[in-house]
Amino acid sequence: MRVGIINIGDELLSGKIVNTNQFDLAGMLIPLGHDIVFNMVIGDDEEIIAKSLAWVRGPDCFLRPDLLILTGGLGPTRDDVTRQGVARFLGRTAEEHPEALAWLGELLRKEISEIAPGQRSQAFVPGGAEALRNPAGTACGFRFEAGGIPAYAFPGVPFELEVMVKAHLLPLLAGDCVLLEKTLWTWGWSEGAQNQALSGLALPASFRYSSLPGQRGVRLTVSCLCPPSDRDAHAAELDVFWRSMIAAVPPEAIVDSEGATLPEAVQKRLAAQAATVSVAESCTGGGLGFLLTETPGSSEFFRQGFLTYSNLAKIELLGLAPDLLERHGAVSEETALAMARGCLERSGADYAVAITGIAGPQGGSLEKPVGTVWIAVASKLTAQARLFHFRGDRNTIRWRSAYSALNQLRLFLSGNPHEP
Amino acid sequence: MRVGIINIGDELLSGKIVNTNQFDLAGMLIPLGHDIVFNMVIGDDEEIIAKSLAWVRGPDCFLRPDLLILTGGLGPTRDDVTRQGVARFLGRTAEEHPEALAWLGELLRKEISEIAPGQRSQAFVPGGAEALRNPAGTACGFRFEAGGIPAYAFPGVPFELEVMVKAHLLPLLAGDCVLLEKTLWTWGWSEGAQNQALSGLALPASFRYSSLPGQRGVRLTVSCLCPPSDRDAHAAELDVFWRSMIAAVPPEAIVDSEGATLPEAVQKRLAAQAATVSVAESCTGGGLGFLLTETPGSSEFFRQGFLTYSNLAKIELLGLAPDLLERHGAVSEETALAMARGCLERSGADYAVAITGIAGPQGGSLEKPVGTVWIAVASKLTAQARLFHFRGDRNTIRWRSAYSALNQLRLFLSGNPHEP
Repeated sequence: MRVGIINIGDELLSGKIVNTNQFDLAGMLIPLGHDIVFNMVIGDDEEIIAKSLAWVRGPDCFLRPDLLILTGGLGPTRDDVTRQGVARFLGRTAEEHPEALAWLGELLRKEISEIAPGQRSQAFVPGGAEALRNPAGTACGFRFEAGGIPAYAFPGVPFELEVMVKAHLLPLLAGDCVLLEKTLWTWGWSEGAQNQALSGLALPASFRYSSLPGQRGVRLTVSCLCPPSDRDAHAAELDVFWRSMIAAVPPEAIVDSEGATLPEAVQKRLAAQAATVSVAESCTGGGLGFLLTETPGSSEFFRQGFLTYSNLAKIELLGLAPDLLERHGAVSEETALAMARGCLERSGADYAVAITGIAGPQGGSLEKPVGTVWIAVASKLTAQARLFHFRGDRNTIRWRSAYSALNQLRLFLSGNPHEP
Repeated sequence: MRVGIINIGDELLSGKIVNTNQFDLAGMLIPLGHDIVFNMVIGDDEEIIAKSLAWVRGPDCFLRPDLLILTGGLGPTRDDVTRQGVARFLGRTAEEHPEALAWLGELLRKEISEIAPGQRSQAFVPGGAEALRNPAGTACGFRFEAGGIPAYAFPGVPFELEVMVKAHLLPLLAGDCVLLEKTLWTWGWSEGAQNQALSGLALPASFRYSSLPGQRGVRLTVSCLCPPSDRDAHAAELDVFWRSMIAAVPPEAIVDSEGATLPEAVQKRLAAQAATVSVAESCTGGGLGFLLTETPGSSEFFRQGFLTYSNLAKIELLGLAPDLLERHGAVSEETALAMARGCLERSGADYAVAITGIAGPQGGSLEKPVGTVWIAVASKLTAQARLFHFRGDRNTIRWRSAYSALNQLRLFLSGNPHEP
């Protein structure tokens, strides 16, 4: 089904809160094989609500959905006018619903007469609409028809929305179609190169391809919606396309062939070797340790780490020679390697990762501008360091450094099997 | 101005990522006195983009804006079609823009001939549109007219969007007016208590008040946009209101009376005492160190820290007695205090903060459920520990722990002046 979503709330438009309703609804509906065709956010305004519904139903709607979901504006305060807006669209008024009032009394454990007028307004629904019980809160939901399109109004409170969708909508929607999906994370493969490499591949007609860049790399997804009867045929077709796609990605850019994220991929590789890792962080101040311990079960491979922000800390905690720091500077290949080796020795871990760089905004020079970062990885057998030049503000440079270190460890682990 | 926003991206509709562009744009535009009248999210579809623009411009638009902002769909991959969609709406084609191409070459430090075709597509803009330089990334933005409505297309990557809006839009929108604004961060002050405490205050008519909860606490802002001639009068009025507002906030909930964030407030207090701090982190794995080194100049007060994820690391790096861990467990008041004291001694810092807890999803028990976290702060004179019970997933519990530790350090620094 093509689903349209209208989120109602001044607090969404004015940036008081991030709109997570759309995200949550997509998370519930898309796995069932439905598509969200649009998401519209409007204010708490009776007339705008009525006009939005008229537009969705009307001949000018270029995004006509098969199902409409409204969220928000069902609270007890006077700015909550979704009931009135829908009623105006239907040419009716909002009316107290006896059954909804009884539910409210039950929920509040009060006699009807004891319910305050504001709260009592939450048992109103537009005339002709079907009241939908809210087991998680006081705002009653309702179902109505918008010119042949079934429409549901649910509360905007995330927990209540989830409960209501699960109670009233999912049972009707389930089982229509199956979603087939494959995901791959890549790192260090520019979008341009990606576009070029994949341009020769023919995506089967019913498949969708998406490429989503973020802090943790680029997430490639290919998905397909199909009826259960076509499942096997489409799964086979997806497999074929997927294999040809993977073959077009430079192997070192594939974070994990089974779709794991960077922290998960590192964890898998360490687990396969039953190996441990330690960190020595300067400019990231703990960011790498935070990422390494993000995955549950990280205590299996991460035991300890050193935050060596100052030169003295690098000397005292990692055993660096003072004259090495003096000769090469804190941000240098030599220092990064010495940090990694010192970390390896002091921690007793199988691998060590060290980061030292200039996160800015101060501290840069012509020779070593802000964004200059050395990352080293060491094992008992070997060590390697790499120089990066990151762009962006302090926060960006620090996260980018931490993720790049994670990736460098991943590559190191792939090319350097652990030999005790 | 009435601003309309169209966010373009399949990944927004399909729930792959939360739409923060709307939130970020509101945060920049609303303090300048502008209103967001609608926010529409549509997929990466050339025809839908063109039709959406036709609708905004057309007679049926019940939400006609004075300014339109488009975000997303400017990447180099084949699903990025915002340029083509806008061009179709304008009855033109997307064309390579020589100046934009030169910017791209500069940014990539490459000759034009070396730029890969995919990436080169990011220097295309719709015919007749004005190219807008992107100093933070490869996606060129552009400005066009949608039936008399000025419209801007910006990248959807949050950091690039912010930079582009600040460079190309805000200077035009602020006009001649001056923005007066005061900000206060609070911590541990519930919204209910806030509403009650502030309900008696009368906000002057031309002022805007906003309360924005987030990971770093609640941000209270009062702002006012006025012509330069009214500046002094409004500033005085704002001062009066601000003082009465501050007086209504419990003192310990005020992160910093001058508007600093939690990391900045800690830095100020440490700087005032010329004191240093060190950390010993277990479940946060570096998150607290990362926050402490977030502010430029943090090397003044942060020299080193210990990531002691395992019991052995707590013993070896912090000098904990093995039988203490055995008797009380790793997540206990005794362990947190011993970690803080050991960290203080081993680092030579003036203050030490220790975190030990159960971030989950495994590792919880009836007695110590997931979310149980002990945080201790120590100075040479005294030490204190506090027990927290955080709700949420692993990520939420870990960030919440790190921020709470930062806040506990702030309170400790306020009540315990540094006496060497």
